Amino acid sequence: MTPATADPSDLPNFLILKIGGGLFSVKSRDHDIDHDAVAGYVRQVADLAAAAPGRMVLISGGGSYGHGAVRHLDPEDPWAALPLTGANAELRWIWTTALQRAGARAFPVQLAAAAVLEEGGAVVGVGSLQRLLATGSLPVLTGDCLPHPDGSLRVIGSDHVPSALLGLSAGSVRVAMLTDVDGVLDDGRTIPWIDPRATGPAREALRVAPDWDTTGAMAGKLDAVLDCARRGAECLILRGDPDQPDLRHLLRPVSEWPAQLRHTRIAPSEPTTGQRVDAVPA
Amino acid sequence: MTPATADPSDLPNFLILKIGGGLFSVKSRDHDIDHDAVAGYVRQVADLAAAAPGRMVLISGGGSYGHGAVRHLDPEDPWAALPLTGANAELRWIWTTALQRAGARAFPVQLAAAAVLEEGGAVVGVGSLQRLLATGSLPVLTGDCLPHPDGSLRVIGSDHVPSALLGLSAGSVRVAMLTDVDGVLDDGRTIPWIDPRATGPAREALRVAPDWDTTGAMAGKLDAVLDCARRGAECLILRGDPDQPDLRHLLRPVSEWPAQLRHTRIAPSEPTTGQRVDAVPA
Repeated sequence: MTPATADPSDLPNFLILKIGGGLFSVKSRDHDIDHDAVAGYVRQVADLAAAAPGRMVLISGGGSYGHGAVRHLDPEDPWAALPLTGANAELRWIWTTALQRAGARAFPVQLAAAAVLEEGGAVVGVGSLQRLLATGSLPVLTGDCLPHPDGSLRVIGSDHVPSALLGLSAGSVRVAMLTDVDGVLDDGRTIPWIDPRATGPAREALRVAPDWDTTGAMAGKLDAVLDCARRGAECLILRGDPDQPDLRHLLRPVSEWPAQLRHTRIAPSEPTTGQRVDAVPA
Repeated sequence: MTPATADPSDLPNFLILKIGGGLFSVKSRDHDIDHDAVAGYVRQVADLAAAAPGRMVLISGGGSYGHGAVRHLDPEDPWAALPLTGANAELRWIWTTALQRAGARAFPVQLAAAAVLEEGGAVVGVGSLQRLLATGSLPVLTGDCLPHPDGSLRVIGSDHVPSALLGLSAGSVRVAMLTDVDGVLDDGRTIPWIDPRATGPAREALRVAPDWDTTGAMAGKLDAVLDCARRGAECLILRGDPDQPDLRHLLRPVSEWPAQLRHTRIAPSEPTTGQRVDAVPA
């Protein structure tokens, strides 16, 4: 796992893996689950968790569960997002039981019970997640709705869960977002590297979110990982495929990845070794 | 709510209300719910929450959900209790949605995400529950299973949830446990006051738990509240009745309760005013 060419600082100490809801669920339907796709990702995640016990968390996108719960919110009702916490609990349970059957010590964690909404977003406190990780378990999270000091419930979509978890590791953190495209696309070409310290044309290249997507699709995802990258995490957006043999490259430095593995890397530095890439300002 | 005769120190600042699973569910069945009973308690709890916003939490007993999930645990499997966290999430959601329909700002909180298992039991951290209470919401909890440092999942039954929450209030805390008897019974007579500083014959008077009850029934309940009482809480065990008009007496000093309202009070001091009672050592 640590070949001689790799700079150890490139190896992630802690992996936050998010599987996009669109990879296992048709968001425009209600309570739709592609069980074959879930089974494929479960196999990959259980394999990763065995390779990095206590060093990773799984975040599931809401798919049709989460999106269905928040698609038509009454703007007059500050508590309108409540169904999201129920729907996403079901979704965590689907992943948890499937992962357990695959041999992983998965455990569902409700974000709203573990985290508090601060100025910049949700932040998990000291406690339950650290304990789960210390025992080698695999916490399974989703988006959720959290109480705001003004008395309303605010939706924290799954793309914004990684930033709540950055404090869980004192070491290097990698955020990997599996989605249904190869990365952030610019006219069909995958942008290899986005420098979060700069801002610029990359955001304009993003595809527009369809009406039924409540998260702003790639633009929202990029904003979420830019926030993580500015706080020191190495972020990757790449295509998920339930038929892939494994995801172990997510534990290796990007500089060692096979060239055909397309991705967008959002980090303040380019990979230490390997092919040079042109940074595109975000 | 504060009559002239009451010593303000007798008024609970914070109410932890537990509704026994046997009051709305036949524990020996699986996924059994008496929806009429739930509706009655929901009416009472929504009324209480409106009278004491942000000053109470609800804990639901596991009933057939919780008991069914942990009845036959494989002692060889340290992760065997996992189904409890799934079953009790369903149960919290039943209470939450019913309470919301009754006008309460109820929000489900997973104990395992909000608390950590310490030497003496579960303890909630600083964070999500305080925020919910600060916004006037009603947290809805149940028992759960929590990761132990040895890597196993440990069951924290609903009777042991109050002790995890004692730190939520800097003021006086009352723990009220609604159950299917009038209190701790000694040969059919309700023991009015149990002094947690003493130990003695009261525990021997307790009825034996039936085979299908995983919590040790009254003996386990008494041990749980003795722990709370030794830490300063005023604890009450009393009969729940879904047809009762309200539960507002739970916000008043016991010394002002009607004489016919039988209960067992577990607290280091007798009520300041009202009829004197004989303490029975626990």
